[in-house]
Amino acid sequence: MDNVVLLGMIAGAVTSLGFIPQLIRGYRTRELDDVSYYMPIMLAVGMTLWLLYGVFVEGLPIIVANAFGIGCCLVLLVMKKMYSHSS
Amino acid sequence: MDNVVLLGMIAGAVTSLGFIPQLIRGYRTRELDDVSYYMPIMLAVGMTLWLLYGVFVEGLPIIVANAFGIGCCLVLLVMKKMYSHSS
Repeated sequence: MDNVVLLGMIAGAVTSLGFIPQLIRGYRTRELDDVSYYMPIMLAVGMTLWLLYGVFVEGLPIIVANAFGIGCCLVLLVMKKMYSHSS
Repeated sequence: MDNVVLLGMIAGAVTSLGFIPQLIRGYRTRELDDVSYYMPIMLAVGMTLWLLYGVFVEGLPIIVANAFGIGCCLVLLVMKKMYSHSS
């Protein structure tokens, strides 16, 4: 595999996995009050645009990482909605 | 400007700006307990790798967006350290 694609794959994996600790913490504590609604919303919108960018430049790691990231943002959003006491 | 570069620029701007509401919320409430330490740490590491990827593929929007994102993650990390009561 191309080294640059490999680098992108690793970058995408690390960035995507970055949301997992937040999801685990939220699931454990049932508290996501301190997390802003706008962060996952804007990240999901931005990552959707990145995904399109990835399609145009044919950057597979960009597509895969952002697809996973969008999923994580949506899960975070649903969890915050479920657990939050205030907005 | 190339439409694809423009798309990447917009994607990068939206994704980067996604951290701003979280920073504002943290600054206002002085509460970031529900934010996992590992999220900004892993995102900063991942975005550093994305930045390198951007350098290799000469994707200017990738470089700019991730440089800004890394800065936001570091600010979030410092704020969490300053405001947090628990780990």
